[in-house]
Amino acid sequence: MTNLINLQIKNTQAVNGFVWIVGAGPGDAELLTIKAYNALQTADVVLYDNLVDESVLQLIPSSTTSEYVGKRSMQHSMHQDDICKRIVFHAKQGKSVVRLKGGDPAVFARTAEETDMLTKQQIDFVIVPGITTASGASAYSGIPLTHRECAQSVIFTTASFKSPEQEPNWVNLANAAPKQTLVFYMGLKKIALIAQRLMENGLSAEYPIALIDKACTREQKVVKASLKDIAKAVENAKLSGPAIIICGEVVNYQQGVSSWAQFTSSQAQNTQTAPVQFQRQHVAV
Amino acid sequence: MTNLINLQIKNTQAVNGFVWIVGAGPGDAELLTIKAYNALQTADVVLYDNLVDESVLQLIPSSTTSEYVGKRSMQHSMHQDDICKRIVFHAKQGKSVVRLKGGDPAVFARTAEETDMLTKQQIDFVIVPGITTASGASAYSGIPLTHRECAQSVIFTTASFKSPEQEPNWVNLANAAPKQTLVFYMGLKKIALIAQRLMENGLSAEYPIALIDKACTREQKVVKASLKDIAKAVENAKLSGPAIIICGEVVNYQQGVSSWAQFTSSQAQNTQTAPVQFQRQHVAV
Repeated sequence: MTNLINLQIKNTQAVNGFVWIVGAGPGDAELLTIKAYNALQTADVVLYDNLVDESVLQLIPSSTTSEYVGKRSMQHSMHQDDICKRIVFHAKQGKSVVRLKGGDPAVFARTAEETDMLTKQQIDFVIVPGITTASGASAYSGIPLTHRECAQSVIFTTASFKSPEQEPNWVNLANAAPKQTLVFYMGLKKIALIAQRLMENGLSAEYPIALIDKACTREQKVVKASLKDIAKAVENAKLSGPAIIICGEVVNYQQGVSSWAQFTSSQAQNTQTAPVQFQRQHVAV
Repeated sequence: MTNLINLQIKNTQAVNGFVWIVGAGPGDAELLTIKAYNALQTADVVLYDNLVDESVLQLIPSSTTSEYVGKRSMQHSMHQDDICKRIVFHAKQGKSVVRLKGGDPAVFARTAEETDMLTKQQIDFVIVPGITTASGASAYSGIPLTHRECAQSVIFTTASFKSPEQEPNWVNLANAAPKQTLVFYMGLKKIALIAQRLMENGLSAEYPIALIDKACTREQKVVKASLKDIAKAVENAKLSGPAIIICGEVVNYQQGVSSWAQFTSSQAQNTQTAPVQFQRQHVAV
């Protein structure tokens, strides 16, 4: 018995597991990539954020260990260092670990800190990109991010700054705005400040801005206004977040997507009852 | 007989079809979202770009009509107006039409022109977001887009400008660079010009830049250099595109993703031979 235990310990020390850093996308579970879906089905352990939608969590097999490692905006329930340690802990047991992050791992997800730790610990990993919230919010609201007429570029900025020193370069943002879309992630509590700073730095009080709450969920709400009116409009809408802000002339180009159909892709012709079979052999690349 | 024909014409005039504007993501077919995959399986007609990877096209059922509506960078084989007309033509026949675009429909994909036409023609549509090439290239190369240490924002700019007047605002880009990642889409033929303009406008000749060719395919190549050396390095690599450029300190934070595993998600434990079953009922949101 003692020998067996020793053997097991030796094995787990000798063979590290593997880590999948996986983007869950925003909201709607059908926005998972096929690769992300497959990783979830085969993982031993899933470590997930609080930004991962409940519909995605429901795809994790009940036999899989899942562990919450979220950070809430006001009350950091787990520090980044501790999250890194949990990933390493499971991988060192020889497990196949999925680190599931809301949105895309490349955008405001602190992925680099986790991959840096994995590299130092000599644990192999891959990154599976996810639909970033800006793309999802654009698709489900009908507000483009780029447009030949008015936006040759788009900038993603975090609004989760905690002090004036951490604020973005407003002069640059306001200067660039006329031909560029500005997107602020995690911006619900900063909407008044963002609008104020953009006006202080030269954007017109009538410049268009939109806030999309709970993007890509059935509860998605879009609030559109001018810079001078947006804070009040958002306050009146009584939103709870998470929210993303899109500022720029593209807001005026919003098109009416058929929101009734956005959640019914799998229910189209012939598949209303039959499960859609996703067959591996067709996807080999 | 004449009556039957008339009846059919009347029906197709009366009932418009439906259009899915779908992001195919970059390269690797497993980066399709579940929603995009399902739309492809149920479409009557698929209209696709030349930026859509061959591995994705192989997922279109052989019984589905598929039609190439691509535009090549040098030889526009089909004008945007004509693409819009093809979409409308099929939808007016009452068909379920998938308009399949490389990457994400919200980013440099001229989606607004197509949705504007659909709105005018009273044809219902939804947009299915895709993995934008920047996210995919970041994941498969290990170069982050944002980083707590050096990139609080990321900007996506098109490099497909055809004249000096269409060039981006280089002063703004160079000013913002020290705390921001610059991404240029479709940049292979513009790499020398981009590096030159960024240096002319104040970025150091030693500033790091990377070009990722054929992102998220098995042929992906990453060329990293300083601004002063990148054009020569890219020339020596003899790349054919499509390519994306990531410029910023994030290039120095590149981590070694396990590229051997990037294409094997479905082959993990227990699923090497059995098809992965994606069952609709688990994904209801």
